[in-house]
Amino acid sequence: MCRWLAYSGSPLTIHDLLYKPEHSLIDQSLHSTMGVETTNGDGFGVGWYGVGDEPGVYHSVEPAWNDRNLRDMSQHISSSLVFAHIRASTGTAVQETNCHPFRHGKWLWQHNGAIREFQTIKRDLVLAVDPSLYASIEGSSDTEVFFYVALSLGLEDDPPNAVAEAVGFIEEVGRRHGVEHPIQMTVATTDGDRVWAFRYSSERDSRTLFYSTDVPTVRELHPEVEILQKVSDESRLIVSEPLRDLPGAWNLVPESSYGVIQEGQDELLPFKPRVPSSPTSMPAGV
Amino acid sequence: MCRWLAYSGSPLTIHDLLYKPEHSLIDQSLHSTMGVETTNGDGFGVGWYGVGDEPGVYHSVEPAWNDRNLRDMSQHISSSLVFAHIRASTGTAVQETNCHPFRHGKWLWQHNGAIREFQTIKRDLVLAVDPSLYASIEGSSDTEVFFYVALSLGLEDDPPNAVAEAVGFIEEVGRRHGVEHPIQMTVATTDGDRVWAFRYSSERDSRTLFYSTDVPTVRELHPEVEILQKVSDESRLIVSEPLRDLPGAWNLVPESSYGVIQEGQDELLPFKPRVPSSPTSMPAGV
Amino acid sequence: MCRWLAYSGSPLTIHDLLYKPEHSLIDQSLHSTMGVETTNGDGFGVGWYGVGDEPGVYHSVEPAWNDRNLRDMSQHISSSLVFAHIRASTGTAVQETNCHPFRHGKWLWQHNGAIREFQTIKRDLVLAVDPSLYASIEGSSDTEVFFYVALSLGLEDDPPNAVAEAVGFIEEVGRRHGVEHPIQMTVATTDGDRVWAFRYSSERDSRTLFYSTDVPTVRELHPEVEILQKVSDESRLIVSEPLRDLPGAWNLVPESSYGVIQEGQDELLPFKPRVPSSPTSMPAGV
Amino acid sequence: MCRWLAYSGSPLTIHDLLYKPEHSLIDQSLHSTMGVETTNGDGFGVGWYGVGDEPGVYHSVEPAWNDRNLRDMSQHISSSLVFAHIRASTGTAVQETNCHPFRHGKWLWQHNGAIREFQTIKRDLVLAVDPSLYASIEGSSDTEVFFYVALSLGLEDDPPNAVAEAVGFIEEVGRRHGVEHPIQMTVATTDGDRVWAFRYSSERDSRTLFYSTDVPTVRELHPEVEILQKVSDESRLIVSEPLRDLPGAWNLVPESSYGVIQEGQDELLPFKPRVPSSPTSMPAGV
Repeated sequence: MCRWLAYSGSPLTIHDLLYKPEHSLIDQSLHSTMGVETTNGDGFGVGWYGVGDEPGVYHSVEPAWNDRNLRDMSQHISSSLVFAHIRASTGTAVQETNCHPFRHGKWLWQHNGAIREFQTIKRDLVLAVDPSLYASIEGSSDTEVFFYVALSLGLEDDPPNAVAEAVGFIEEVGRRHGVEHPIQMTVATTDGDRVWAFRYSSERDSRTLFYSTDVPTVRELHPEVEILQKVSDESRLIVSEPLRDLPGAWNLVPESSYGVIQEGQDELLPFKPRVPSSPTSMPAGV
Repeated sequence: MCRWLAYSGSPLTIHDLLYKPEHSLIDQSLHSTMGVETTNGDGFGVGWYGVGDEPGVYHSVEPAWNDRNLRDMSQHISSSLVFAHIRASTGTAVQETNCHPFRHGKWLWQHNGAIREFQTIKRDLVLAVDPSLYASIEGSSDTEVFFYVALSLGLEDDPPNAVAEAVGFIEEVGRRHGVEHPIQMTVATTDGDRVWAFRYSSERDSRTLFYSTDVPTVRELHPEVEILQKVSDESRLIVSEPLRDLPGAWNLVPESSYGVIQEGQDELLPFKPRVPSSPTSMPAGV
Repeated sequence: MCRWLAYSGSPLTIHDLLYKPEHSLIDQSLHSTMGVETTNGDGFGVGWYGVGDEPGVYHSVEPAWNDRNLRDMSQHISSSLVFAHIRASTGTAVQETNCHPFRHGKWLWQHNGAIREFQTIKRDLVLAVDPSLYASIEGSSDTEVFFYVALSLGLEDDPPNAVAEAVGFIEEVGRRHGVEHPIQMTVATTDGDRVWAFRYSSERDSRTLFYSTDVPTVRELHPEVEILQKVSDESRLIVSEPLRDLPGAWNLVPESSYGVIQEGQDELLPFKPRVPSSPTSMPAGV
Repeated sequence: MCRWLAYSGSPLTIHDLLYKPEHSLIDQSLHSTMGVETTNGDGFGVGWYGVGDEPGVYHSVEPAWNDRNLRDMSQHISSSLVFAHIRASTGTAVQETNCHPFRHGKWLWQHNGAIREFQTIKRDLVLAVDPSLYASIEGSSDTEVFFYVALSLGLEDDPPNAVAEAVGFIEEVGRRHGVEHPIQMTVATTDGDRVWAFRYSSERDSRTLFYSTDVPTVRELHPEVEILQKVSDESRLIVSEPLRDLPGAWNLVPESSYGVIQEGQDELLPFKPRVPSSPTSMPAGV
């Protein structure tokens, strides 16, 4: 439904990340090969960390392949932590406030997938958003509501737990409304320091998600790929769909699991939704 | 903050209404003289009745004075009931889903003014929207929420009563949150048959609103104005700001009152907000 | 590269033409099956005749599948002569002034294909535009220049001859610059009365173009297709790609030929470019 | 008709330059006080030098005051040489390819004013553009053609001479077509190293242009202005209209003169158009 990438590592220009690779994200906006939709032309967005604590974001409703400003500006911004997302709308309006990545304070959030029958269950989900956060919701997409439910459940303190509870809550609400498989998702979130990436779906048949093999190994396998000479050993990409056809470079994130990119050892762990035991932020009756 | 017009009468092209008059609405988008803001460049919209029961709408985030499609298309659409609105945002995003007139079924709704401290009271207002209507809210503006509150309170059955209750409710919620003057408004709504136009503000110092003198009188006063020869005696305009400087042609709608344009005699009546006695659609605790 | 349709017949809403058919033009904007590009998301346009002599046009840089205004407005405009075009840019900017159909006075013009190495030969082509027409060129696309060259060569008096000379001239200029196959085209043009549609390419391997079988025959073959009950026997569609999979309903326009839709008998004739004998509008040295 | 600024000095974020000052350029887009038009809402652009030799540019057709991406991105880009421009169109389309600053290689160019009766003389001007540069013209504005005429006359080698010849040529062509006062201009251009700013009009009644007093003097006069503590003694602004009301801080560029901002001593010199003696790039007969 969408495609995204998350990069953490040596500073690269956004142009290096988005345009240079074969089968780049920009290519995928026109010719995705693994998505449900081959075209992701319903807006896009980039988020990056640089000046200050808060990330910059750039959102556009034009198809990414056409955006002259992105092509230009991306050559002038370099960052060591970049999120990028191309959208194929699952129904909500194509407008900048529905473009990923979403930002709240220093956090970014992007999603490939959908909350099913979102129009039906939206009100119950929105009621679970902490009243102090409620007014920050600007758009009408399922993903932004998902983000604010996770924030209300403590994303900033314990991302894996908050996402597990948010998903548990969405499944609980969805099933109450008769939705068989309430959620389909790969999600990435970051505080500018660590990156968490989740792969899950209620039907256990989730959209693809790949992480890159450690740089020294790929460098040895593919000495001809120039960019690998430029980036540190710690650099890492997570993507909906491999950017280049490099044997040995990409690993599928297993069904129902999540990874953490961080200083020191990265992690790959099982993911299990959990209905929040005491959703105190939620008004009685929900 | 915004400017609008409502026209009911002999079929005219939208171009006749929006571009032809001196000091037309398109002029006012650049050079309003009576508004708080002289520029209304944050998007615009047109709604009209023609084919079918439901009105057509055209929304754009470009300033109206620049829109080539509006200039062109407006020459090819003629209608006997037209709403048009130019926006000066009071804070919410400039996007098509925030452009007036808003539509629900066969109803249109447009507003000049603001719900004050909307971000603070938005959640309480949205909770009062009937759950069956909730998912139809597409944007993030105060006006759209106002419209859906009025719909929840019976706009389609009794517009003056529903608007009175919606305003009473907004004032009640606003004051509960410490907002001194919760609402400032001129509002027009229509079902394609009759038009209701309201002028009110909590501080009793409302934005201007004018209705046109009956056509035979103006025609006699200003025989040189061509368009007056083309329109029926029943034709009527309501506007934020007079379109032409025609002595005798425009009458100020009095403070705290509303008018009805309808077949037979038009009406002008006092407007008084009323807290809804039994807002059954509203969840306990609101 | 692009997809287009031209309709002449009983008045239909633009919505009937663009959205209702299976494999409609809007579908083709996402999933063209016969084009070089499967996605035509670089803007679109509609032109139609209604009020007045001059056609209305609506151009947008959004992908057609996303345009809320088109979806809405198209239900409120009905016409007996409609052009519609979805664009896959061959290099020039995505902006409204590059969207087809182009209009000059009462004429419309739309094109699927390209003038090859246009950037190289553009100056020579533009020099051939009549100085009195020159300032009307608003965009930067090859198609608009092609249109103005044809206008300079008498399009308004004798369309088949003017197009033959324009193509002859483009081929002559292109070959002088070493371009092997200077032009690839299906082109439609109309004065609001008759429609001319051309299929040609320098390499004699032109993009597909189809015209509809006469309505009485298709109606008999496919009595279940409702719209065929609504349209007159004279109604006719010309399309880049069939809209529905209706056996017997579509006929390929032969290579290097053109058709005329007109009152009385339609025509299908061979097309042969011709270098203009005395391009008096062209400055010496070109 | 437009407003612009050029900044050279200590690296500042684009946000510091565009949003922070009282009566900033963003304010002026809504409420210019010295321009012919009070509103400059027909698109805007920013150009800056940072990574690489070539400047980045960001163009948008939205009014500057509304652009969320500009507000955000500008906080993440810092530069020691910035051009910014807000546009009030004098007739040509509002599209990104008509937004200033224009770029060619490492050069930027922005303009406040107009070439009068541009549609009439455009063809003659365009014919004077070097054929090798011709295909780089992307938009339809007078300013871009002016830029390419200046480039054709040697802007990259000797800017003051090339601008003098370009203006001389425009006046000569204009007068040949009966235009009394062919040009009105303040123009800034830069190669990323030096900045040249010109003030001139055929009628010797040019739009205002101001340059900032040297930083040490202003710092002493206005110790309360924080940003003056952050920038080097060499920092300099040139603006259509003063950004703050700081007595002693702004100096009017005299009629018919130009300034150069450069390492070492800045210069202020008289400007006199000159018809190019031998416009070899221009086809015979022009």
